[in-house]
Amino acid sequence: MLNEMMVGMGKKRSTIREIFEYARVRKAEIGAENVFDFSLGNPNVPAPAAVNDTIRELLAAHDDIYLHGYTSAQGDANTRRAIADNLNSRFGTEFGPDDLYMTCGAAASLKISITALYEPGDEFLTFTPFFPEYRVFTESAGASFKAVETDPATFQIDFDRLREALSEKTKGIIVNSPNNPSGVVFPEEAVVKLAALLEEKSAEYGHPIFLIADEPYRELVYDAKTKVPYLTEYYDNTLVCYSYSKSLSMPGERLGYILVSPKAKDAGDIYAAVCGAGRALGYVCAPSLMQHVIEKCTGMVADLSVYKTNRDLLYNSLTEYGYTCVYPDGAFYLFMKALEEDAEAFCEKAKKHELLLVPADSFGTPGYVRIAYCVTTEQIRKSLPAFKALAAEYA
Amino acid sequence: MLNEMMVGMGKKRSTIREIFEYARVRKAEIGAENVFDFSLGNPNVPAPAAVNDTIRELLAAHDDIYLHGYTSAQGDANTRRAIADNLNSRFGTEFGPDDLYMTCGAAASLKISITALYEPGDEFLTFTPFFPEYRVFTESAGASFKAVETDPATFQIDFDRLREALSEKTKGIIVNSPNNPSGVVFPEEAVVKLAALLEEKSAEYGHPIFLIADEPYRELVYDAKTKVPYLTEYYDNTLVCYSYSKSLSMPGERLGYILVSPKAKDAGDIYAAVCGAGRALGYVCAPSLMQHVIEKCTGMVADLSVYKTNRDLLYNSLTEYGYTCVYPDGAFYLFMKALEEDAEAFCEKAKKHELLLVPADSFGTPGYVRIAYCVTTEQIRKSLPAFKALAAEYA
Repeated sequence: MLNEMMVGMGKKRSTIREIFEYARVRKAEIGAENVFDFSLGNPNVPAPAAVNDTIRELLAAHDDIYLHGYTSAQGDANTRRAIADNLNSRFGTEFGPDDLYMTCGAAASLKISITALYEPGDEFLTFTPFFPEYRVFTESAGASFKAVETDPATFQIDFDRLREALSEKTKGIIVNSPNNPSGVVFPEEAVVKLAALLEEKSAEYGHPIFLIADEPYRELVYDAKTKVPYLTEYYDNTLVCYSYSKSLSMPGERLGYILVSPKAKDAGDIYAAVCGAGRALGYVCAPSLMQHVIEKCTGMVADLSVYKTNRDLLYNSLTEYGYTCVYPDGAFYLFMKALEEDAEAFCEKAKKHELLLVPADSFGTPGYVRIAYCVTTEQIRKSLPAFKALAAEYA
Repeated sequence: MLNEMMVGMGKKRSTIREIFEYARVRKAEIGAENVFDFSLGNPNVPAPAAVNDTIRELLAAHDDIYLHGYTSAQGDANTRRAIADNLNSRFGTEFGPDDLYMTCGAAASLKISITALYEPGDEFLTFTPFFPEYRVFTESAGASFKAVETDPATFQIDFDRLREALSEKTKGIIVNSPNNPSGVVFPEEAVVKLAALLEEKSAEYGHPIFLIADEPYRELVYDAKTKVPYLTEYYDNTLVCYSYSKSLSMPGERLGYILVSPKAKDAGDIYAAVCGAGRALGYVCAPSLMQHVIEKCTGMVADLSVYKTNRDLLYNSLTEYGYTCVYPDGAFYLFMKALEEDAEAFCEKAKKHELLLVPADSFGTPGYVRIAYCVTTEQIRKSLPAFKALAAEYA
């Protein structure tokens, strides 16, 4: 009677959502300050002051038709121009406004991109660990989905496994760097190697394999030496899916874009397919007032210094206690090996210490947990004895 | 190589979009005030002052996490509570916040509803004339789409034709009253008859046929005597798709909701399927700041009095000049018979008088044109001699 896939997706709470509900109850029982909740990737820093200032200025300066009226389906032309200019100044690219399509955030960007590219029989790949919604967006579009295992020590691309996973069916690869949940960044040499392999395989199969860069964490890197290569400069058949959720700390506003590299084969057709997919999926335009805000704020970044402080404190403390952690170059997640094989059992034991961690099974990496450190530094400091006590249980 | 359906949807400009582009060029040539552009259903009245006042108050009173952070996927609970309370006070219903799912506007509401209900082989119906995107949303979801012809004199439901069109395959009927493009409202007796027929056919087929009420124009009715029946009170298996685009005159902000009638069969599963479809389609939550605005403004309506003035002036003048028009009880469209069989040819002749009208072929009603009167009354007044001259060409 109903679409059972959709009923299932609506009913099956994600693991993160279940922990969220547990946290709500537990915080009510013993006080929020006594629960060390590392479950949610929800930015806890304010937006740059310019965001709200710009809203106030826009309200004072413009009429309602400009503020709240439809923009074109691709998005306001001035907003797209400002974004292209900003990207060009940072990455030496030569994008124009007509390479950009404004969206309701990275989830919409990904869904629209996959739908635009999809033909029956297609498969999309990604690397472990991966954001579980990739599977949802891909499979609900009709395509199959496969996660390629990375090097278990570094979570960097294992090119032998990737070569094995590629096939005639491969339409695209979702690349997420900095990565949720591991914080890992793919360095330039990996990107160069990836591009070369995809060129080779595209030629062999006689059709392009697309890179879909999911980049909500691009600006969240903490060391000057960490470079996040801009993929269009290494591989032509690239779509970049961006979101302002993390960089401007406004995840509820649902603002992002798709950039179709003008160097992609048949870029004009890809852009048209993106417009068509947006239309078919019910996206009329991205929210107008916030598009105008982005015109003014696209180059800005919220004060992310707390994330670096948190990362250093947490990484140094936990490795000192004997935990094995992947050093996160970016994002706001620490990826830690559970102290027993079953990460869910480990997370249950952590709960006894009021530590709420996310087992990484649904990210395609059993035996690990994700620790979202987008919390106050004080909360991390208070949680350290609990991590120490948890480790002692396994000593 | 790409999804050709999406390339096609992206490339094939809608008729309205083509006229929009023509208008842009023509206005640059002879001055905007000399082009009588009736092509776009874009509200030209400001939002209620309370909308921008509420934004300013929210910015002053709340932190950024509240203003711009994620809400739950269903939408902010207080916003949903406010909407349910408002509906209950107006329609004597007993909705709760958990019957509501906040969306990015009516297009998203429709796409999510169709996706939630869709099973392979399903067909969705609507009545002529109809908003062309219904076909896009339905066919891109995999379902088939059929428009049932209405009574050509009144554009009211032709129940013989409807009975003939219904089949085992019918999953739902999209009802749009007040109607875009005709302005027609379905009166209570039609709704009662429709409900009875669907009860009969649902029983015969052994599965429910859903009503999907597309209601962006609900508040745009101009005579106290015109009642727009609230469909959940006549038929249990109803989903209401609402948008604030027209009532609050903020179409660019993309704010609306789906109401799943709690009286529907398996309402809980339908609601879950709506949540699942929203998730699968990439809708994480509706824009947060505007959700908080809706909490305060859901009962308000922009000053729509200009639309009534426009309707009366235009309807009275055009019928006086000899045109045949459907009397519009609501929305901001006048549906007029072209003065020759080929509405496109008629619109081309109208262009010579600088009148931009939309031929209604893509609305499933050849031989008619849509006149969007959401313009200033002054513009209508200035256009009347052109309409008169156009009629004289056919005299």
